Amino acid sequence: MSHLVALSAALGPDATLISDSDITASYSRDHAPFAVSAPPFAVLLAKNAQEISKALIFANENKIPVVTRGAGSGLSGGANSDAQSLVISLEKMNRILSLDAANQIARVQAGVINIDLDTAAKEHGLAYLPDPASREWSTLGGNAATNAGGMCCVKYGVTTAHVRALQVVLATGEIIELGSATKKSVTTYDLVHLFVGSEGTLGIITELTLNLEIRPAPPATLIATFPSVTKAAAAAAVLLKYRPSMLEIVDQTTLKAVQAWHPLGFEVAGSVLLMQLDENHSLCEAALETCKKFDLIDGVYSDDPADAADLIRVRKLAYPALERMGATLLDDVALPITKIAEFVEKVEALSRETNLVIGIFGHAGDGNMHPTIVHDHGDTAAADRAKQAFARIVEIAQSLGGTASGEHGIGSIKQGFVANEISPKVAALQREVKKTFDPNGILNPGKKI
Amino acid sequence: MSHLVALSAALGPDATLISDSDITASYSRDHAPFAVSAPPFAVLLAKNAQEISKALIFANENKIPVVTRGAGSGLSGGANSDAQSLVISLEKMNRILSLDAANQIARVQAGVINIDLDTAAKEHGLAYLPDPASREWSTLGGNAATNAGGMCCVKYGVTTAHVRALQVVLATGEIIELGSATKKSVTTYDLVHLFVGSEGTLGIITELTLNLEIRPAPPATLIATFPSVTKAAAAAAVLLKYRPSMLEIVDQTTLKAVQAWHPLGFEVAGSVLLMQLDENHSLCEAALETCKKFDLIDGVYSDDPADAADLIRVRKLAYPALERMGATLLDDVALPITKIAEFVEKVEALSRETNLVIGIFGHAGDGNMHPTIVHDHGDTAAADRAKQAFARIVEIAQSLGGTASGEHGIGSIKQGFVANEISPKVAALQREVKKTFDPNGILNPGKKI
Repeated sequence: MSHLVALSAALGPDATLISDSDITASYSRDHAPFAVSAPPFAVLLAKNAQEISKALIFANENKIPVVTRGAGSGLSGGANSDAQSLVISLEKMNRILSLDAANQIARVQAGVINIDLDTAAKEHGLAYLPDPASREWSTLGGNAATNAGGMCCVKYGVTTAHVRALQVVLATGEIIELGSATKKSVTTYDLVHLFVGSEGTLGIITELTLNLEIRPAPPATLIATFPSVTKAAAAAAVLLKYRPSMLEIVDQTTLKAVQAWHPLGFEVAGSVLLMQLDENHSLCEAALETCKKFDLIDGVYSDDPADAADLIRVRKLAYPALERMGATLLDDVALPITKIAEFVEKVEALSRETNLVIGIFGHAGDGNMHPTIVHDHGDTAAADRAKQAFARIVEIAQSLGGTASGEHGIGSIKQGFVANEISPKVAALQREVKKTFDPNGILNPGKKI
Repeated sequence: MSHLVALSAALGPDATLISDSDITASYSRDHAPFAVSAPPFAVLLAKNAQEISKALIFANENKIPVVTRGAGSGLSGGANSDAQSLVISLEKMNRILSLDAANQIARVQAGVINIDLDTAAKEHGLAYLPDPASREWSTLGGNAATNAGGMCCVKYGVTTAHVRALQVVLATGEIIELGSATKKSVTTYDLVHLFVGSEGTLGIITELTLNLEIRPAPPATLIATFPSVTKAAAAAAVLLKYRPSMLEIVDQTTLKAVQAWHPLGFEVAGSVLLMQLDENHSLCEAALETCKKFDLIDGVYSDDPADAADLIRVRKLAYPALERMGATLLDDVALPITKIAEFVEKVEALSRETNLVIGIFGHAGDGNMHPTIVHDHGDTAAADRAKQAFARIVEIAQSLGGTASGEHGIGSIKQGFVANEISPKVAALQREVKKTFDPNGILNPGKKI
């Protein structure tokens, strides 16, 4: 408790420092189901970088682990704390500091909700494009810390491609500015993008300068059913030539789960592809012709926005439909797009072998797949099998030239897989880079690396 | 000379190690005009990463400076050597190792010429998009080391956006693999993009996995003349809404220089904008309408590729036309696009004040400008004034929220300006990062940081 008293004194009376265990418990974890966590000894609802600086100076001197969080919507346990930790939440730092429409940039505090920036940009004919599924509640700081992806990233790139500059508070308390507000700059080492995806282990991102892009036209949406995931995945690779702004795949298991909840409006097939084109809608017909070469069962498209919402509903409902069936473990791996079919076959075999429901869907155009393991709530034996299957899915991806995480991060649930992809020397370099920025190792210890 | 003998012994008889001073002199510098250089004691024409590893182990043990070069087409003295240096040239490592059309990636050795990859990609309907002006002779390794830009980057991003993975030889000789061949990956710290733009100071890039994109359709090209750069720059900011794949500006001084060499085919105006659209050609008419709001004098467009070459000739000839007039100093700064007009006015004032011809052209859509100072060959007083003007141009850019280098790099000519943009702490972090990768400081010492 002395840490709490001393920290409170260091921060001063204006700081919102919470130690009520009913509240701290709600700040102890993100949405990853099986990562360990415990309520932190305190939660700081930070108001500004200076407050965070004070907290970090104190934590660094006293070797207190610090876990940073935005909305806590992460899926890898990256924001999970233990009892010794101080959690710093940036949710109150939620101001859009400036929106410079002519230069197509915005400066925001890290706690701004993703969709709020996009909404503000929309008034100027602009968009903040990265669209993680959590965009209506996740924060831009959290998106940057995890290098979040999303559906339109197949065309527009993931979060890192949209970050120009950062304000960061270092573990030692210095507040630094990295990067340039200009569209191009090669004046310094690219430390900005080293911080993106570093999951709170190198510093605390407090402000971001982000790209806004010309708002794409409303898309045309195409849905196509195939007899198998193999065929749908093969079609997806070819459909990339139309430069889709969305290219998603859903397998039969997931289709059945959705159908059991909300009528699909079409017959359950082996697999479904969903595609959006935001430039040349007239290519939809050509795209359907392409699909015919891969045993297309049925396909429709529309450039009516209301129809579009209807057509992509099956993808939006994929995860919640699986969640209705029991406890879920949502995996996240990325593969060469040409390996998706083989990956799916192996995961389907794993499903049979382990007697677990595994629904497979994901960002086909990026090769980023989200197999989701379902088991009965409270069935601990099945839960253990699910955890093992979760690991096997990562290993299957890696065996096919894929990677342990495409967009959710390593957090506290995937560190064991990283060594399969990097040499001991690269692992050592990561630790040295970490030490350069965080000499006492207080920032999110045990996460990412 | 003992270094030469010992290095030769370490490398073995198969290595091409050159010490003939007639030849080493031609490896002593890039195309930056006023950076110092001296012939290195030896040049290794490397055949593979293993040979480079041996050379670096030797250099690291003996604290020998190592300067890496591709084609030597750099513009910042980044590849300049001194007499104590070993130069490692990657020009012989010029094989495209694989081109995976379905997954839209290529694996190349660092010495592959930029255009050669694009030509190979073209056969598959793909493109390697980053298009530095040097693309017909510069290497992909050099492009990555400098994070090279180009004209189509206004739409498709600079080199860093197209690099997925790297093989790097560290100063200590280890050969490491960074990044993932998958389109998305958040499994490790992003060390790949830390190396991009590091100008040979962190390691030697020997292989690259690069994005290939669907080849854009042949563009429509638009040329528009304006009474002043102020008007043209203001129009450029608005023209971004058409998502141009090229948006270039040329000032009156440069137009006159071109006109004096090759007839422009149109009246010399205050300024010219050149724009290409590779999606929706039908927007050209709307773009011209937009230009009218900025006092357009005259404008034409065409989607005939032969016409396009004719229309953009003025931009292609901009720098060579200025070179015809005397010795040139080509500067490179990046600004907020809304500051281009003010920047140009200040540079024009500088031109009058210093009695130096300064032609201004550049990538308007990116705010990346290349003022080029011209003086008589052999006029040492003018050369001194030119050097001072070169520095003033950087300071003007910085005073307007710009940065010292947009795409050419810091090299050995702009280190003095970096401190204006970063805090001492960030400068210290850069040095610490450098030390992590290159503990003895042998890689391109005195460059970049």
